[in-house]
Amino acid sequence: MLTPRRIWKRCADMDVRAKGFSERAGINDALDRLLKRVKTLEAEEVDLVDCLGRVLAEDLAAQTDVPPFDRAAMDGYALKGENTFGASQGNPLYFKVKGEVMPGMSLDLSIKDYEAVKIMTGAPLPRGANAVAMFEFVRELGEEIEVVKAVTPGKNVSRRGEDVKKRDLLLKKGKRLKPQDVGLMAALGIDRVLVGKMPRVGIIATGDELVEPGKSLGGAEIYDANSYSILSMVKRDGGLPRLYGIVRDDYNSLKETVEKALREDVVIISGATSVGERDFVPQIVSEIGDIVFHGVAMRPGEPTGAGFAGDKVVFMLPGYPVAAIFAYETFVRPALEKMLGQKGEERYHKVRGRLSRRVASELGRRDYVRVRLLPTEEELQVEPLMVKGSGVITSLVKADGFVVIPENTEGIEEGSTVEVNLF
Amino acid sequence: MLTPRRIWKRCADMDVRAKGFSERAGINDALDRLLKRVKTLEAEEVDLVDCLGRVLAEDLAAQTDVPPFDRAAMDGYALKGENTFGASQGNPLYFKVKGEVMPGMSLDLSIKDYEAVKIMTGAPLPRGANAVAMFEFVRELGEEIEVVKAVTPGKNVSRRGEDVKKRDLLLKKGKRLKPQDVGLMAALGIDRVLVGKMPRVGIIATGDELVEPGKSLGGAEIYDANSYSILSMVKRDGGLPRLYGIVRDDYNSLKETVEKALREDVVIISGATSVGERDFVPQIVSEIGDIVFHGVAMRPGEPTGAGFAGDKVVFMLPGYPVAAIFAYETFVRPALEKMLGQKGEERYHKVRGRLSRRVASELGRRDYVRVRLLPTEEELQVEPLMVKGSGVITSLVKADGFVVIPENTEGIEEGSTVEVNLF
Repeated sequence: MLTPRRIWKRCADMDVRAKGFSERAGINDALDRLLKRVKTLEAEEVDLVDCLGRVLAEDLAAQTDVPPFDRAAMDGYALKGENTFGASQGNPLYFKVKGEVMPGMSLDLSIKDYEAVKIMTGAPLPRGANAVAMFEFVRELGEEIEVVKAVTPGKNVSRRGEDVKKRDLLLKKGKRLKPQDVGLMAALGIDRVLVGKMPRVGIIATGDELVEPGKSLGGAEIYDANSYSILSMVKRDGGLPRLYGIVRDDYNSLKETVEKALREDVVIISGATSVGERDFVPQIVSEIGDIVFHGVAMRPGEPTGAGFAGDKVVFMLPGYPVAAIFAYETFVRPALEKMLGQKGEERYHKVRGRLSRRVASELGRRDYVRVRLLPTEEELQVEPLMVKGSGVITSLVKADGFVVIPENTEGIEEGSTVEVNLF
Repeated sequence: MLTPRRIWKRCADMDVRAKGFSERAGINDALDRLLKRVKTLEAEEVDLVDCLGRVLAEDLAAQTDVPPFDRAAMDGYALKGENTFGASQGNPLYFKVKGEVMPGMSLDLSIKDYEAVKIMTGAPLPRGANAVAMFEFVRELGEEIEVVKAVTPGKNVSRRGEDVKKRDLLLKKGKRLKPQDVGLMAALGIDRVLVGKMPRVGIIATGDELVEPGKSLGGAEIYDANSYSILSMVKRDGGLPRLYGIVRDDYNSLKETVEKALREDVVIISGATSVGERDFVPQIVSEIGDIVFHGVAMRPGEPTGAGFAGDKVVFMLPGYPVAAIFAYETFVRPALEKMLGQKGEERYHKVRGRLSRRVASELGRRDYVRVRLLPTEEELQVEPLMVKGSGVITSLVKADGFVVIPENTEGIEEGSTVEVNLF
């Protein structure tokens, strides 16, 4: 229950709020100011089997040629290609068989002119050989073979270093590792790899109206969705989330929880822009550190802010679920990527399509419009989802992605080609 | 070291191999036969915080309306919209202030005509009210307010059930859960969710030439890349991988390891198509169960096979790293998705672009061509990567995605529009 004093305090806040943010930062400006102060965390060494999705913290150059020796790329007979010139069905050429070589067998064979060694794909080429005549152009006659087609030197052979040359820079610092990258590292013999530490993220939800999922709802209560969508996004982005629960709208509990959460690298408070909290949270952040921005020219997500307590980043996200998600994508995700040391990769897959309906915006503000994709015969139609509020999380579940309406326009006309960021 | 008998055996195999697969299955046919026998694993209940990326094993319908009550969508004064008709700057209308209501405050207020209640976004609308007049169109005069702009009934109000109606089917069985889905479940009060069990996958690499990353290489040896790229793909796809290591090319060790690995739900053997193994692996699979297909009309990846030992699926993947990856994507991934109960989702994001160079293929075979994307002013250029072998894993690391050349063509002409599957 609110005390009369608290209500009075809140109503005073309302008047401040009624006027909106006195100045709204532009997204790029706010992001620049934020990222300038975000530091990349130190690196740690992990086992190859644990590095998928982690961000590489070192340049990886090949310590070895791949393949490390000339080897057969086909099954057949290794020989000197130049000895086969002129061979044909009508004019077979004869080679003496000196033995056979299998993958993994150490190299103890060499050949001279008109000698051949039976060889399987992956096996090292005998000394003196430079090509492989495939079985289908060879007739086996006991100690000898007939070759009925010429093979040029180099044919059906993987040369040493053909895939990777020793000292080639293969994977760059800052890359988020995919399965094929892990495979490549294994092929190079790498078993331990230096990656950025995973940022630890404390998540706090504020609001007297919030209830944890699984509990029952009172008359004016709603469930806390933000803690769980934020936790999931942090996981997806390579952070280690930890829930600090729902904090009542109370200066002392909020300050205590924020201070506790500062043992993490990042603290995310959602609902911080509801009336009471809107005052408390910035106040608390100012007390324990400083605010970088608060209030951004974007929709949804205007009441977003960020600050620092020492090296720890504190985010203030809107209470509305969809606004919280876009604010996260716009500010938290790039910050986590910088902490991880991630570089130069696109955050979303993008497709282009034709806008099926005009969408309006405000000059100077960046809008995020949720859209659905409707592929037609000739083109991709991009349909803006009709949504009233930034609370409507079903719109995100139904959407295939979103279109950004940049600051310098008042909207995008029907029929324009737009770029869709896919979820 | 190979015994003379083994070498003799191998050479006999070579001759079989020289002729290639006596029949190659078409991809669709092979996949159909495989998936027909793959069973969806049972479901398990997990906590909401653990369900990201898992596959939903139940239809989720809303147990509650969202929002669960009519609430303010803006800050201002809750009132009867019809009472404001005619209001303007020159003709303000007067309302008596009856109190205030905050988010989370239980509803104990009601209003009559020309009464208003101060209200903050998210707070429940007092009984009798149907609209919110925003602060910017209101002048506060102590006990009274002046409203200077009309608001229609319903304006600035989120109606009960506006986002979600009780019993709406929101998330369908078979969906892989994204952050926004987790947020939506939280908003609905769900704290435990039924998801498909993660398939356990045993991974075996075979080949006398293979060495574990981190160890040093002998003359004819190469590092085992497949175990690690397969492990990473299994993780990405929601399985629980476990490495069973490198097995020498020996019937007994291989059979023993396969039998041990059958405690998992799936066994993946790579390198099974090298000479000796090519014989042993299908032989072993036939002994412990049966083979569904072996040899597929695709490139890379032709020497791919699959079989069953009871309910357990056994995959035989090629030894060449890139071939193993495409064979995995083509057969293992759909099988894991079926085991997880995943439904109807696109495996890759796709973009369209113009092919910069002709790519040739063979009629009746499906080719996977690795490509790089080069965005130009007008269009997206799709450049096939020049690669000689299917061992060249750097080609996958450099590629942005791949283009499929279907069975019914002999290639795709330069300048054609193609669909690229993005990595």
